[in-house]
Amino acid sequence: MSNAILNPHVSVDCVIFGFSRDTLRLLLIRRTVPNAITELDDSYYALPGDLVNDSEDLHQAAGRVLHELTGLQGIYLQQFQAFGDPGRISKPKDRNWLQGVRQDPDARVITVAYMALIDSQKVQLQPGSFSKEAVWIPIDEIPELAFDHNDIYESALAALRERIQIQPIAFELLPEKFTMADLQSLYETILQRGLDKRNFRRKMLNSGIILPLTEKQHGVSNKPARYYSYNRQLMQNADSQYINLRMEGSFTLFQ
Amino acid sequence: MSNAILNPHVSVDCVIFGFSRDTLRLLLIRRTVPNAITELDDSYYALPGDLVNDSEDLHQAAGRVLHELTGLQGIYLQQFQAFGDPGRISKPKDRNWLQGVRQDPDARVITVAYMALIDSQKVQLQPGSFSKEAVWIPIDEIPELAFDHNDIYESALAALRERIQIQPIAFELLPEKFTMADLQSLYETILQRGLDKRNFRRKMLNSGIILPLTEKQHGVSNKPARYYSYNRQLMQNADSQYINLRMEGSFTLFQ
Repeated sequence: MSNAILNPHVSVDCVIFGFSRDTLRLLLIRRTVPNAITELDDSYYALPGDLVNDSEDLHQAAGRVLHELTGLQGIYLQQFQAFGDPGRISKPKDRNWLQGVRQDPDARVITVAYMALIDSQKVQLQPGSFSKEAVWIPIDEIPELAFDHNDIYESALAALRERIQIQPIAFELLPEKFTMADLQSLYETILQRGLDKRNFRRKMLNSGIILPLTEKQHGVSNKPARYYSYNRQLMQNADSQYINLRMEGSFTLFQ
Repeated sequence: MSNAILNPHVSVDCVIFGFSRDTLRLLLIRRTVPNAITELDDSYYALPGDLVNDSEDLHQAAGRVLHELTGLQGIYLQQFQAFGDPGRISKPKDRNWLQGVRQDPDARVITVAYMALIDSQKVQLQPGSFSKEAVWIPIDEIPELAFDHNDIYESALAALRERIQIQPIAFELLPEKFTMADLQSLYETILQRGLDKRNFRRKMLNSGIILPLTEKQHGVSNKPARYYSYNRQLMQNADSQYINLRMEGSFTLFQ
């Protein structure tokens, strides 16, 4: 934490997605509640976030939170929504935690939420001073979170589902080289439904956004799968980052 | 203006689009600068906006601004981005105006921007106490605006371009009944390029989101065009509001 002046009314929160072993995970921090009455009450989970410094803009603040927690810089980080319900800080646990840390629990805080996508193999978790523990939790096991963080996470997931079908951002969740099966598993996990293997393969190859590598999987005796990489150069040179990756039978109403 | 307590650090701003006579317009308010030195300096344009009341959430605040200005309720109003550059209130004109109105010009204000789409024929402009004049200005004649409002408007237009191709929202800008030519003109104006007439017609009809009416244009001697209406009921009953309205040769990179 730096010593800059924090604006008591505006915060940023980061919904950080990672993908490994066919599972989409969320990076959460475990908060310690001071003077907890029962053991059950002594900790709970929250999205990583902080107040915004007076000298930084919103994106910088989100980048700072992300960097302090993961040690990473220059990763996919995108604002997706601001949350300002007047009752968003009302649960006794939240007020208790705020009182123990630094803030007037009656101050209204509006938060600007960011979505980050990272290759979780790259991350070296660096729990900050305000978090007891940082953990990856599979998205089907997300517990009750602090404040309105469950709402924020649900909105982020909905936004992610939409965006992977119009922008080539899902690759941020994969290692540099991946198989077609890895990529399809990622799409299926985020969209939460199965996709036809042949159509998926054709759509991805026709789009030009992935490049086949000569390398194949090691240590697989029978039919080793080819590796692919994301065609980052093509996308950087392009005029636009929009792309049609809508999956058939997806949540698109009409084809 | 109500007498509720305004949070001095968070505002909402509304980018209000209207469409008439084949022109996309923005609803702006003209601000009067107190103690202006020259005549040229005595007024300038800004997006309609206000500080957020302590008792309202962000969407309510944006709805209030919109209602006070237009008398309308229940129209398309969608948050699209928060803006928090520390230098966003630095122009002498802006600081002068703020000093004359109510605020400490040194207080940092983060603004949450909303996009509104309205059928401009429905609007009865109701200039509020803080605006000298409310006017519709064609988007190719937008002057220098207050604060970072040019950036906010540009971001709104980019978001609108994307969204009309994945959600049936463009209809909010049209009257209840419209011709196919009206609809195509609207898409062409927003996308800023021509579209093939036959493909456009086929795409719209195949999507099922518009319904042909029996009524045709009046007072047109030769080939009166058929009227259509937006299939609002179908869309309300649908599980999802996403739809594939991507236009060929548009800013989509790959088909």
